[in-house]
Amino acid sequence: MRKKIEECNTGIAGLGLMGGAVARALREKCDVPQDRLFACDRDSKTLNTARQEGLICKGFDASGAGEMLALCDIVFLCLNPSAALRFLEQWKDSFKSGCLVTDVAGTKESIAAAAQKLCEYRKSDNIDFIPGHPMAGAEKSGFENSRLCNFSGKNYILTPISHNKTENTEFLKNIIRSMGFSRVTEVSPAEHDRKIAFTSQLCHVIAAALIDCESDVKITRFGGGSFEDLTRIAMLNAPMWTELFIENRISLFERIAQFEKSLDELKALIGGSEFAKLEEKLAIIRDRRMEMSAD
Amino acid sequence: MRKKIEECNTGIAGLGLMGGAVARALREKCDVPQDRLFACDRDSKTLNTARQEGLICKGFDASGAGEMLALCDIVFLCLNPSAALRFLEQWKDSFKSGCLVTDVAGTKESIAAAAQKLCEYRKSDNIDFIPGHPMAGAEKSGFENSRLCNFSGKNYILTPISHNKTENTEFLKNIIRSMGFSRVTEVSPAEHDRKIAFTSQLCHVIAAALIDCESDVKITRFGGGSFEDLTRIAMLNAPMWTELFIENRISLFERIAQFEKSLDELKALIGGSEFAKLEEKLAIIRDRRMEMSAD
Repeated sequence: MRKKIEECNTGIAGLGLMGGAVARALREKCDVPQDRLFACDRDSKTLNTARQEGLICKGFDASGAGEMLALCDIVFLCLNPSAALRFLEQWKDSFKSGCLVTDVAGTKESIAAAAQKLCEYRKSDNIDFIPGHPMAGAEKSGFENSRLCNFSGKNYILTPISHNKTENTEFLKNIIRSMGFSRVTEVSPAEHDRKIAFTSQLCHVIAAALIDCESDVKITRFGGGSFEDLTRIAMLNAPMWTELFIENRISLFERIAQFEKSLDELKALIGGSEFAKLEEKLAIIRDRRMEMSAD
Repeated sequence: MRKKIEECNTGIAGLGLMGGAVARALREKCDVPQDRLFACDRDSKTLNTARQEGLICKGFDASGAGEMLALCDIVFLCLNPSAALRFLEQWKDSFKSGCLVTDVAGTKESIAAAAQKLCEYRKSDNIDFIPGHPMAGAEKSGFENSRLCNFSGKNYILTPISHNKTENTEFLKNIIRSMGFSRVTEVSPAEHDRKIAFTSQLCHVIAAALIDCESDVKITRFGGGSFEDLTRIAMLNAPMWTELFIENRISLFERIAQFEKSLDELKALIGGSEFAKLEEKLAIIRDRRMEMSAD
């Protein structure tokens, strides 16, 4: 039987936007005391700020990650996908026996494979790694903007691997709900990546393309909210989204192709002045979107 | 010299989402008394509700529009583009001498031509028609949702025609600012239609295509806000957007082509695993979008 989260030492690897938001939620929503919360980050200023704000008791620089891991019963990897993979390879011997690890990366197949590998490598130490994805980002990045991530009412996806123990998954789900998320969905890593290619990556590619094709920054004088809503996420974390787009490109390209097909169908109706057919199609689309809101 | 708006009889033709919102703003923000506000609509229930809510003093059915127009110093045409054109043709003789007319349609070239025609036809009666476009819609339609249109801080576009008198344009701009809009921009009808094809119609086509290409309404379980933000406007007023898309299809198709070109460029970088070039492009896009927010 695991201790309660507030009795565990918890470590956060990477104190950026999401790492900072997780730290805040653990402190403010899960009642984790400051002296139970640790973080490692390459930026010592961020670590100092987090300590001064009462979030963490001790910060470790990149080379001190092993020292932090030796203390922690729970570890949140809050790194870009490639950095998370490198971290796991570099520090695989440093995780504490019985440690529960999770991550927040926006693509899951490669991290799930690495999680499975770590669990097998450290099987005798009873280490468990449950890959996850909190669906609660923000347009800005970095620890200094971590208050912008609002977890309340948001979705959290877990992509358990065969190694995961039910008690650990239940334990993590309780933490997630305590942090404020309203729905925890479990799917396979592959299913996650296919779904997210649509709801997240396709949307970011579209927003980016919309901004790319208009160089007049004063165009917003002709905006009524639609353009602003569709392009807010174009204020993206460029290195992270570069990784997410390229890593999940097979699923993403399938989704782009589906989107282009739908766009072509609408173009055909508009170009052909097909008033009745276009109105019928738009009514179906409106009803479907309203049904989505109700779910 | 015109009377103050609160001393004018004002008529609203079409008490739907925007007509209702204009009526509320005139009553609540511009201090227009109930006994100065009139409306005509094909739906008698809507007219009764608006009267009971204290918005208007008298409602006229579609056949009574002429009776209303005979009373009104100011008229807001709050109809779909095609209905506005039919209304102008049918009631061109009924506008009161000296009347100031404006409209709210989302495309402006055809209505501006009709406005010019009306002004010339009723020149001796000193009628002026200034075409306009309040950039403040909502995902829902109809009078019953008119409270969802929030004018505060929004853009309003005017597309004056050669006939318009400066004093009338200034008078209308004062009303618009009193209603809560923060920025009134004047451009030609053609320029309006080119700009709006991008900020409004392209965005609605994209949102519609996104919903069209995914039939699983439970996909929102994998949403983190991006998908919801990009598709909220897919809950569109199907008859109105059918007209707007088809009427402005030439500008819209140019914008779709530009968007597709940008999408293709992003696809090439993603498909070719061009990490450095993609990150560089996304950073430029992010900066441009941030500059747009600052305008």
